[in-house]
Amino acid sequence: MEHYYSGLYTDFYELTMAQAFFFSGKRDTTAIFDLYFRSNPFKGGYGVFAGLENAINGVLQFSFEGNDLDYLASLGFRKEFLDYLVTFRFSGNIFGFREGDIVFPNDPLLRVEAPILEAQLIESMLLNIINYQTLIATKATRAVFAARGRDVVDFGLRRAQSMGAIAAARSAYIGGAIGTSNTFAAKRYGIPAVGTHAHSWIQSFDTELKAFREYARQYPDHTTLLVDTYDTLKSGIPHAIQVAKELAEKGHKLQAIRLDSGDLTYFSKKARKLLDKADLTGVKIVVSNQLDEKLIASLLEQGAPIDIFGVGTRLVTGGEQSALDGIYKLSSIGNVPTLKLSENEEKINFPGKKKVIRYLNGDGHFAIDGILLEDETEDRIRVLRHPSTEFKKTRIDRDGLKTEQVFFPFVEKGNALGPFPSLDEVRQFARRRFALLPDGHKRFVNPHIYRIGLSNRLYELRKTLIEQGHHHG
Amino acid sequence: MEHYYSGLYTDFYELTMAQAFFFSGKRDTTAIFDLYFRSNPFKGGYGVFAGLENAINGVLQFSFEGNDLDYLASLGFRKEFLDYLVTFRFSGNIFGFREGDIVFPNDPLLRVEAPILEAQLIESMLLNIINYQTLIATKATRAVFAARGRDVVDFGLRRAQSMGAIAAARSAYIGGAIGTSNTFAAKRYGIPAVGTHAHSWIQSFDTELKAFREYARQYPDHTTLLVDTYDTLKSGIPHAIQVAKELAEKGHKLQAIRLDSGDLTYFSKKARKLLDKADLTGVKIVVSNQLDEKLIASLLEQGAPIDIFGVGTRLVTGGEQSALDGIYKLSSIGNVPTLKLSENEEKINFPGKKKVIRYLNGDGHFAIDGILLEDETEDRIRVLRHPSTEFKKTRIDRDGLKTEQVFFPFVEKGNALGPFPSLDEVRQFARRRFALLPDGHKRFVNPHIYRIGLSNRLYELRKTLIEQGHHHG
Repeated sequence: MEHYYSGLYTDFYELTMAQAFFFSGKRDTTAIFDLYFRSNPFKGGYGVFAGLENAINGVLQFSFEGNDLDYLASLGFRKEFLDYLVTFRFSGNIFGFREGDIVFPNDPLLRVEAPILEAQLIESMLLNIINYQTLIATKATRAVFAARGRDVVDFGLRRAQSMGAIAAARSAYIGGAIGTSNTFAAKRYGIPAVGTHAHSWIQSFDTELKAFREYARQYPDHTTLLVDTYDTLKSGIPHAIQVAKELAEKGHKLQAIRLDSGDLTYFSKKARKLLDKADLTGVKIVVSNQLDEKLIASLLEQGAPIDIFGVGTRLVTGGEQSALDGIYKLSSIGNVPTLKLSENEEKINFPGKKKVIRYLNGDGHFAIDGILLEDETEDRIRVLRHPSTEFKKTRIDRDGLKTEQVFFPFVEKGNALGPFPSLDEVRQFARRRFALLPDGHKRFVNPHIYRIGLSNRLYELRKTLIEQGHHHG
Repeated sequence: MEHYYSGLYTDFYELTMAQAFFFSGKRDTTAIFDLYFRSNPFKGGYGVFAGLENAINGVLQFSFEGNDLDYLASLGFRKEFLDYLVTFRFSGNIFGFREGDIVFPNDPLLRVEAPILEAQLIESMLLNIINYQTLIATKATRAVFAARGRDVVDFGLRRAQSMGAIAAARSAYIGGAIGTSNTFAAKRYGIPAVGTHAHSWIQSFDTELKAFREYARQYPDHTTLLVDTYDTLKSGIPHAIQVAKELAEKGHKLQAIRLDSGDLTYFSKKARKLLDKADLTGVKIVVSNQLDEKLIASLLEQGAPIDIFGVGTRLVTGGEQSALDGIYKLSSIGNVPTLKLSENEEKINFPGKKKVIRYLNGDGHFAIDGILLEDETEDRIRVLRHPSTEFKKTRIDRDGLKTEQVFFPFVEKGNALGPFPSLDEVRQFARRRFALLPDGHKRFVNPHIYRIGLSNRLYELRKTLIEQGHHHG
């Protein structure tokens, strides 16, 4: 099992609303909800969409067991409604981006079209899955980008938010991590399991040298020695070099040393020199200790000769940003477009049944995402409108933009369409897509803001509904 | 099932070390590990210890299934070791604080004494459970403290870190939240499930008034109306008042209104006035929208007449601090005390088999935690030493301090000792304990730092081992 797909894995108000829809005759009224986020995580320039496979599986398996219903009955839910829940199966349609694609604020990541009762019940679970996995896939992508070709591995299990660790390992792998220390997730998802030993191994021997020798004896071709238990420069690295030479004499090779404390730039430079001087140019340097993308970038800017970054807490929890602000907003009810007003214009959602077309520059890089109404034909779109600023427009023809499909059906009438790509395929796809994002959106400080444009019809629809909206009250 | 208690729910290096211990003849060498954190979460003055029951259950259920072993075999683990893992059951002892107690940096929250192989294998899982639940119980306690007697409820599921939501609801309840929106956790742990409806309910009707009326008709005694879909003051609150009066005519009562956007101080004051003017003094005001303890405190300082705070994202993820820095350090091996050196003296752990005695002031409030060696008799302790500053001492007699037991056995030779208290008992215990913490430690800005003192013997042992330590290298 990879997630709680119980029908109870939902906010309580989804159930009270569902019962109310049931008894108010709205149970089968068709609704469309868009799942999207309003601002990029980590003050960055993009998001990496993840969690799709879990989310779709969650929707299709969402159901209620006998004791779930007993529980709901004990809270006062009515028998007729509970009899309906026994039979609950999602019967609607879901469109969305492919897992691993690069996404932006206001892109509808998922569009759920279903009887409102059904679409409402799955809200909390969809947000719970997509918000977190997208957050972590984005965080990992940033760390891997900062590492400029060096390896990044997930060491986060011990500080992860409980079982969030499992989804974290999966998302980090999508974002480009090469492995995880989380053995459960490694097995579940086929991710390489990584890690060797802790300080306690060293402490359990009389001397560091004995500890190193014994570890190397047991894993002659898979040893990374942790060199900072006593004194990194005077003891740890010299002992590691001694053991590396002893291994070499027997035809084996020390894989790496690991630094887990202190000034990682200083120690990695010293370590590299000492290793190279001992003709151990092939022994890699692994570092860990409260790393994130900014520290990785800083270490490399300082010329730290690091080969592998073990990233833990800040990778699997998001660090300074611990949640993506994804939301799930009703955009159509009974086939009538709707929106939720707000004092803040930017928070007003885009109404109607929509799709997304991505426009590419002449060199094939992402230029702008066009949000169109479903029945619009993209080759008739000449202009994309800024969502709120009247005079801001992007002219498709003039700019020589080409279109690309990024929005696909995943569930039709409650049935999954085709198998999901493997996790490795998703990971490779994410890497290819990230390569198509212009560099300006990738930088950490004040990244270039990617444009989202509305079709004229969607722009006008929204404007009209905002004006009308104040009369609905 | 409440957690993944698989033997694979562990960092991979625990397994490689375990195999190395197994084949190096150290499998049965007795080790003691302390689980503790180094700094209070949220720059606060305390932690609220949570996760004990899950952690102990996790240790006792930690085992390997057939396909786990097949997986490990595929990674190169040796048959003799895997045959041992088949039979793996934790056989050691665990002491610690009671769940819900107030704890401080360097308190050993758990002391695990077991054959090193066993103690090592359970490290990652223990940290994963205790770090997160303690983080969230502390966050919730802070929010409840800020709310000064008003209710706090957990609305965090949709932004929680995947299934971390389940442990979050439990921890938030321990910290004093009165309910959760997470229905799965509510059922699992017997926590009140809370929540009524979303904006989408309102949008699914022609008018707000119709939507309110229909909801009130269906839940005449359990309705909270969300009043900010169109215009809070001109539409939402007047309509809520109208529906409240209609309910009253039929002998029912509107429970509350909810504000989810805008200036919550301004709107709650306006709402209260309008409600009171309509003789609806009993209708409560619920607010939500990116709340945390500091916003709650700020709202109440401004006189916002709020009755219930719905706290979501920042409660279940920790907000600005997304992880507790709990660690698990070897303090004794083969009955010989040990420590891990560090350039930073404060990071050097306390060696040996230890216990904690809490000292209380004359008025019964917490004064200082004494860390003693296990074989020390507390009534002989006259002085507690600052861990690193030679001249700083606390004189027990002079200060009239009394002792209290805070450190208890939970597992003996692999068997749980007695049943766990119920979650409600843990919650009440946490509240009683928090009341014994002096106010200076509770404030959010520059809280008073709680003292930890070492017995003379422990102080001298540590000093000696630090001096010797540099020779172990």
